[in-house]
Amino acid sequence: MITAKGGRLGGMTADPGDPTDPADPASLRSADPASLRREDFPVLRPVPLRWNDDDTYGHVNNAVHYLLFDTAVNGWLLEATGTDIRRLPAIGIVAETGCRYLAELRFPQAVWCGLALERLGRSSVTYRLALFAERAEEPAAVGRFVHVYVDAASRRPVPVPAPVRAALVELDPSLDGAR
Amino acid sequence: MITAKGGRLGGMTADPGDPTDPADPASLRSADPASLRREDFPVLRPVPLRWNDDDTYGHVNNAVHYLLFDTAVNGWLLEATGTDIRRLPAIGIVAETGCRYLAELRFPQAVWCGLALERLGRSSVTYRLALFAERAEEPAAVGRFVHVYVDAASRRPVPVPAPVRAALVELDPSLDGAR
Amino acid sequence: MITAKGGRLGGMTADPGDPTDPADPASLRSADPASLRREDFPVLRPVPLRWNDDDTYGHVNNAVHYLLFDTAVNGWLLEATGTDIRRLPAIGIVAETGCRYLAELRFPQAVWCGLALERLGRSSVTYRLALFAERAEEPAAVGRFVHVYVDAASRRPVPVPAPVRAALVELDPSLDGAR
Amino acid sequence: MITAKGGRLGGMTADPGDPTDPADPASLRSADPASLRREDFPVLRPVPLRWNDDDTYGHVNNAVHYLLFDTAVNGWLLEATGTDIRRLPAIGIVAETGCRYLAELRFPQAVWCGLALERLGRSSVTYRLALFAERAEEPAAVGRFVHVYVDAASRRPVPVPAPVRAALVELDPSLDGAR
Repeated sequence: MITAKGGRLGGMTADPGDPTDPADPASLRSADPASLRREDFPVLRPVPLRWNDDDTYGHVNNAVHYLLFDTAVNGWLLEATGTDIRRLPAIGIVAETGCRYLAELRFPQAVWCGLALERLGRSSVTYRLALFAERAEEPAAVGRFVHVYVDAASRRPVPVPAPVRAALVELDPSLDGAR
Repeated sequence: MITAKGGRLGGMTADPGDPTDPADPASLRSADPASLRREDFPVLRPVPLRWNDDDTYGHVNNAVHYLLFDTAVNGWLLEATGTDIRRLPAIGIVAETGCRYLAELRFPQAVWCGLALERLGRSSVTYRLALFAERAEEPAAVGRFVHVYVDAASRRPVPVPAPVRAALVELDPSLDGAR
Repeated sequence: MITAKGGRLGGMTADPGDPTDPADPASLRSADPASLRREDFPVLRPVPLRWNDDDTYGHVNNAVHYLLFDTAVNGWLLEATGTDIRRLPAIGIVAETGCRYLAELRFPQAVWCGLALERLGRSSVTYRLALFAERAEEPAAVGRFVHVYVDAASRRPVPVPAPVRAALVELDPSLDGAR
Repeated sequence: MITAKGGRLGGMTADPGDPTDPADPASLRSADPASLRREDFPVLRPVPLRWNDDDTYGHVNNAVHYLLFDTAVNGWLLEATGTDIRRLPAIGIVAETGCRYLAELRFPQAVWCGLALERLGRSSVTYRLALFAERAEEPAAVGRFVHVYVDAASRRPVPVPAPVRAALVELDPSLDGAR
């Protein structure tokens, strides 16, 4: 069997952040990310690895996680809205991203990306994301991804488009009544 | 002249986070990232763009920023330590990253990455990073990058290697007396 | 439905190479690449696209095809040999690659990579590859990929390892008696 | 000093192609690629490596060479034409690429890409390319890159745009009288 060198990165907890330190990104820490499970995410999408995702250390490079997040979010949006979101008058531009890496990944492990809605604003959508490797209970990584919707031409912020807002009910059923 | 479509993404501030919301990554928000300047970073390194860094929206994809951060940090470490850090018994594994995107970048803009030390722990180093496009005063992006040093074989956390610790004085002169 | 802008790139044949011109890569031209079909490839593997595979022209960037080839070849080798080929004393280093682009691809099209054996040498393996988009009969791209096996330490050429040679029978049954 | 593991890949010549075999891409073989030198290329452009260009084998992945070629060709075109070629009514789409890998590259080696004109057709431009690592006399890789110009909207072939044709004189002075 082909597995990652490391299994869980015990080291990541050896030098814990100071919870009172404003330099700690609270969102990724507040709910212990390692405690997240597949069932915490309404949508799970396969995000297959590629040979060259592994870098010189023999594990998936930290930037690749963002390629997987981007693909999971936009791939889901394309399907859930039934619309080519790239041609809407308002497009989702990435305003902020973040990731905590909890375990190494390595090609050709099968990986899934979980999607949940963290926050829906007037013109922004914040996703909570996690990567799960086959047979692993704990996430290999937990992330955050903020889309701000802007006019495709002027790049000025606009409200989240209706088809996107409607699709988000799949990620948070409580939105259904709220609309 | 070839410029990015957008200039500053005014939209990024139109839907501001709630400062009392634990879901906001405090570290990137506490000091208004847009107020950071080149002189806030002891080291500036060129990080040239590539043609295919631009995605379907005609701007540098959000994951590319992390490729630039990785290259700036590790490129600087290789030079500043005078050592091939990849062959040390302890290697720096990325435990956490984050980025706020303030303005669009577009090939072939010239871009520099600023490096500062945010926090030095027993086995971890947290860098504050920013990308500056040519002729722009404000950063196009501000990031955070956490290396945890682990034994290259066991992947268990170990102290930050001495050559790395010595090099970090360049990023924070106050460390010099502290050692 | 979401499709690529272009369909077949008729233009690719409008300026045909001179068949007597030594500057034309014969291997990709001799058998008209557009005439290749899925059934010409003993193995077909899914190679899903990612959001940022599309470049500023809204189609999959030409370099991405090689990421897909690399992933298809090495992913197949890992499965077909039942061995982590990265830990064999001899590793396959890429000595030559080539690709002809016949139709544009665009995320999130489903894409398959066909694998066939073009030539087996003492220390080299040449694969013929093709990418097929969902519902398309003709290939979107046809490629060539040459592995040379070298000693992992000295990087000097060595014979193709036995497990790899055995696996190649799946790509060319005639090899079975030849061994 | 930090160098690639391997130096010249002697292995690449250990299993030479059959010059009478139509499966050998003549263009890359006809003139022995290893004999090419910087002075064979009218234009040389720096193409810096990135940390994660190195794959699990600790050398630059074969697909990265195409990112460098793409960046060198399009970066040169943007400068030499003084025009944002992406906004011309005719855009250059890649119809064919090829590369022979002669020596391993490894971050953070300094690398230059040489550009020469191999062939200018009615609607196509074929570039001969090579990558040279710092202090190396022989190329680390030799490539071929074919642009076909198409109407940006219809994607049908059109003549090479005048600004591009004019710029190509820099790569082949003999074109100057020919126009």
